[in-house]
Amino acid sequence: MVQDKLGAERLSAWLEKSTGWAVAAGKLHRDYSFADFKTAFGFMTIAAIAIEKLDHHPEWANVYNKVSVDLTTHDAGGITQKDLELAEILDKAAGKLL
Amino acid sequence: MVQDKLGAERLSAWLEKSTGWAVAAGKLHRDYSFADFKTAFGFMTIAAIAIEKLDHHPEWANVYNKVSVDLTTHDAGGITQKDLELAEILDKAAGKLL
Repeated sequence: MVQDKLGAERLSAWLEKSTGWAVAAGKLHRDYSFADFKTAFGFMTIAAIAIEKLDHHPEWANVYNKVSVDLTTHDAGGITQKDLELAEILDKAAGKLL
Repeated sequence: MVQDKLGAERLSAWLEKSTGWAVAAGKLHRDYSFADFKTAFGFMTIAAIAIEKLDHHPEWANVYNKVSVDLTTHDAGGITQKDLELAEILDKAAGKLL
């Protein structure tokens, strides 16, 4: 199913309720900071299983205790409902570890 | 132990023997491409355990089946023996999965 790019109003409402997320370069962006590398990678591992299940993949980068995430839906040329879903999954995975 | 930045000759000799590594923006860089997300993340998981053991951490980013890696030693202000060691560990982890 092709997702539609979210309208500005829907996206603003979601951002207002979220923690740490912003739009940067047209993508949904968040930086997570954990205690150390193994906690950061623990987060990524928990998230990876959910990502595979959702079949929607982030751009994410890790340096030591930090993980930065960018979400977009290439087919839609922007941020879709699927990105919000993934953002919420990532927050849930991080929540236990932050 | 503080590592010394490698000399140009030592680094060139290592690069010549290596596969896929280059110096980019003063860091040791390689892009890995796997079959899919779960294989890419499988590589990262195998590597993460070795990284934690070595206590020397990469800058690495993942998008779907791709993992790009940058290695440098901040304390030394450049590429050290420790980065070569980490590069070889990453190649070994990837070797089974590429």
